[in-house]
Amino acid sequence: MDIRTKGFGKRTLVKDALEILLSCTKITGTEKILFERGLGRVLAETIIAPIDVPPFDRAAMDGYAVKAENTFGASQGNPIYFKLIGEVSTGINSKLKINDFEAVKIMTGAALPKGANAVVMFEYTNELEDEVEVFKAVTPGKNVSFKGEDVKKGVVLLRKRGIIRPQDIAMLAAVGRQKIKVYKKPRAAIISTGDELAEPGEKLGAGKIYDANSYALAALVQASGGIAKRIGIIEDSPEKIRSAINIALSSDVILISGATSVGKKDIVPQVVAELGEILVHGVAMRPGEPTGFGIINKKLVFMLPGYPVAAIVAFETFVRPALQKMQGMEIRSPCQQVQARLKRKIASELGRRDFVRVKLERKGKEYLAEPIRTTGSGIISSLVRADGFVTVPENTEGIEKGEKVVVNLFRI
Amino acid sequence: MDIRTKGFGKRTLVKDALEILLSCTKITGTEKILFERGLGRVLAETIIAPIDVPPFDRAAMDGYAVKAENTFGASQGNPIYFKLIGEVSTGINSKLKINDFEAVKIMTGAALPKGANAVVMFEYTNELEDEVEVFKAVTPGKNVSFKGEDVKKGVVLLRKRGIIRPQDIAMLAAVGRQKIKVYKKPRAAIISTGDELAEPGEKLGAGKIYDANSYALAALVQASGGIAKRIGIIEDSPEKIRSAINIALSSDVILISGATSVGKKDIVPQVVAELGEILVHGVAMRPGEPTGFGIINKKLVFMLPGYPVAAIVAFETFVRPALQKMQGMEIRSPCQQVQARLKRKIASELGRRDFVRVKLERKGKEYLAEPIRTTGSGIISSLVRADGFVTVPENTEGIEKGEKVVVNLFRI
Repeated sequence: MDIRTKGFGKRTLVKDALEILLSCTKITGTEKILFERGLGRVLAETIIAPIDVPPFDRAAMDGYAVKAENTFGASQGNPIYFKLIGEVSTGINSKLKINDFEAVKIMTGAALPKGANAVVMFEYTNELEDEVEVFKAVTPGKNVSFKGEDVKKGVVLLRKRGIIRPQDIAMLAAVGRQKIKVYKKPRAAIISTGDELAEPGEKLGAGKIYDANSYALAALVQASGGIAKRIGIIEDSPEKIRSAINIALSSDVILISGATSVGKKDIVPQVVAELGEILVHGVAMRPGEPTGFGIINKKLVFMLPGYPVAAIVAFETFVRPALQKMQGMEIRSPCQQVQARLKRKIASELGRRDFVRVKLERKGKEYLAEPIRTTGSGIISSLVRADGFVTVPENTEGIEKGEKVVVNLFRI
Repeated sequence: MDIRTKGFGKRTLVKDALEILLSCTKITGTEKILFERGLGRVLAETIIAPIDVPPFDRAAMDGYAVKAENTFGASQGNPIYFKLIGEVSTGINSKLKINDFEAVKIMTGAALPKGANAVVMFEYTNELEDEVEVFKAVTPGKNVSFKGEDVKKGVVLLRKRGIIRPQDIAMLAAVGRQKIKVYKKPRAAIISTGDELAEPGEKLGAGKIYDANSYALAALVQASGGIAKRIGIIEDSPEKIRSAINIALSSDVILISGATSVGKKDIVPQVVAELGEILVHGVAMRPGEPTGFGIINKKLVFMLPGYPVAAIVAFETFVRPALQKMQGMEIRSPCQQVQARLKRKIASELGRRDFVRVKLERKGKEYLAEPIRTTGSGIISSLVRADGFVTVPENTEGIEKGEKVVVNLFRI
C-alpha cells in the first residue's frame, strides 16, 4: 500500500497556514490610471490637495452680494437701500468691487465680488431701478462658501491603501487630479485538473462531469478584485500539469484545483514540490483539508481541492486574503455578518475549523440559521441554497441547537 | 422678482416620490450571455437542471468498489477476501461489472462499476496478487456519490431575478449550461450643467470649478450595475441642454446635475417640462431638496442637485432603486448597516427626511456615530471623511445624543 493513500500525517491549523501564506505574499506592483477608472481600486499614494476647494469665495445662494455690516438693523419695516452696481454669473471672471452700501446681483456658485462678505437671498430683497431694498440683516459669511472651505490646498485628501469610493472620485475630480497611482490587480491563472472533466457546452461522455471549479474560481478572483485567466482543463498527468504551470507562471498567482489530496492520482503536490517548494499541504479544516500552497519562481501556487464546495471554502479562507494583500488592501472579511440562533446542532471535531453552510430564516426579531444537510463537499447545490456560513472554531466539538452564532453572508 | 426664485411651493415626501418613480420605471430588457460572464448579473429566466449531477454513480473515495453486503462481518482479525477483477480511473467509460465477492480498484470521481454499491477505502484493505483483503464492513452507499445526489434532472437550479454569485456560476457549469438570459444593464447618460464647470486636467480659469458630479454619478451608476456614459459639461443654456438631452435619449435613463433649483439659471426643469413631463420636482429631504424627475420619450430623466453631496444623496435615494428595478433586481438598500450610539445631537425639521453623514468610532463593544460638522451640501470632503449616514425620518425634529441609531455604511 502506497504511503500517499494514508491521509495527511500532519494538518496545519488555519491560523498558522494563513500566517505562513501572508508572510510570503507580496504586493503585485503599482500603475497609473485615470481617476475616473478608479472605483474599487486601492490607492498606492496619499493624495494631497493641489488647490483650494472651492478655489475662490463664492455665493452659496442666489441673491445680492453686500458688506454684511451695512445690513445691520434692516427689517421688513425698515429696509436698507443698496446701490446695484452690476451682476455676476457663474463661471465669470468679474472685476467688480463693492464699496459700502453697494450690491451686486449674484448667482449660486458665482465668485463673490471683492469687498463683499455675505449674500442676501432674493426673498429678503426687492429690486428697484438701480437700487435694492434689503429687509433682513445678514452676518458676515452668510450664504458664502469661502475659498478652501471644503478642502485647503496641501491637506491630505485620500490616504494610501484606501479603497476608492464614488465620493473619493468626486473629491479627485474636484481638485482636478487626472492620474492616480493604484496597486495593480493581481492576475490569477486558473487550472482545473482531472481526466473526468469536460467543458460546459460539450457533450458529456460516459464517466465525465463538467468542470465547475475553474469557473467558480474565476468568478471569485473577479469578486476579489483580481483578473482571472482560465488556462483550462488539464489531464492528470505530471507532464501536462508541469507544462500548464509553466504557462501559468506568466501570471501573478496560480490556482490549481483537483489532484491535491493523497490518492494515487494526486500528482499536483508532486509537481509543485518538484518545480518549487511546498509550504503547506493539508489544513485542519472541513471542507478543504487537502488545501495547500507553495512557491514556484517566486509565484504563489495554490493547490485547491477538487470538490467544488471545498475549493470555494479554501478560496475564501486563503486565496482571497492573499489577493487582498497583493493589491495593497487591508485583509478583511468580505462578508457582511448577522447574528442568528442555530436551528439544529452542529457536530465538529476538536482541532479542526469547520465551515458549515446555513440557510437563514427570519423569526420575529431574530434570525434562525439552519445548517444545510449535505452528503459532502461535492454538493454544489448546498452552496446555492445557502445564505452564508458559520465557522466552528478548533477549540470546540460543535455548537448546540439554540446557541447564538455569527453567520457570514455570501455576497457577490 | 421672479416667481422661480421663491423656493419650492410644495415638496413631495421621499416615500411618495419613490412610489411615483417606481410606478413608471420599467425593466430595460433581457439579453443572452455566456454563463461565465454572469457574476453579479440578474437572471431573467428560471434555470432547470438539464441533467443529473453527478451524472452517474461515482466513488467519493479512493478504494475498492464492492457489494457492501459481501463485507458484512469483516474485521481486522477476520478479513474477507475479494477477487480483484480490474481498475476504473476517472473519466473512463468502464464496462466492468461486479459479482459477489469481486472488487474493482477505483479512484475518487470514477464511475462505480455495475453491481457495486459501496467503496472500501484503501486504508481498510490489503491488496494481494489478484485478491483484496477487506478488514472493515461497509454499508450500502458508503463512499459513493449517487447519480443526481447533488441535483436531479428537472429541478429548479436557480430562480429568475436572483443575482448570480460565484457558487451559482459553479452550478451552471456543473450542468453544462453555456448561455443564460439575464436582464440588460441599464445605460445611463450623465450630463453636468454649469457655466462654472471645467474638466479635471484642464487649467482652472477664474470663477471656474472642476466638475465633480458627473464623475461621482458615473461611479455610482457603475456601482449600481449600470453602464455610465458621460455626455460631459453643458453650459446653462436651454438650447445646449435641449440638444444634450436629445443625444442622451439614446441611453435608457438620463441623469442631469445642476440647474435644477428655482433660481434664475435653473433651466433644467424648464427644458424637461418642455420636452416631456415632470413628475416630481422638489423633495422634502436634506440634502437634495431640488431633486426631481420626469419622462421624455418614455425615458426617465433625473434632475439632480448641483451640490455634490446633495447629488450623491439624491442618487442613493432615487436613482439607485430605479436602476435596480430596471435590471430586474429586488429593490433593496445597498448598504450594510450597523447600530451605533449618537455622539452628538442631530437637529432636523418635521416633515423632512434628513441624511446625516457620520463618522464611526469603536468604544468597547459598541460603535459611536459622530455627525460630521459641515457648512453645506457642497462639502465633498464631508462625504470622504464619513463612514456612512444616519437617516432622520420625517416624523421627528431630531435625534438626541446617546440615542441608538442605524448607520448605513458606505461601500463600493
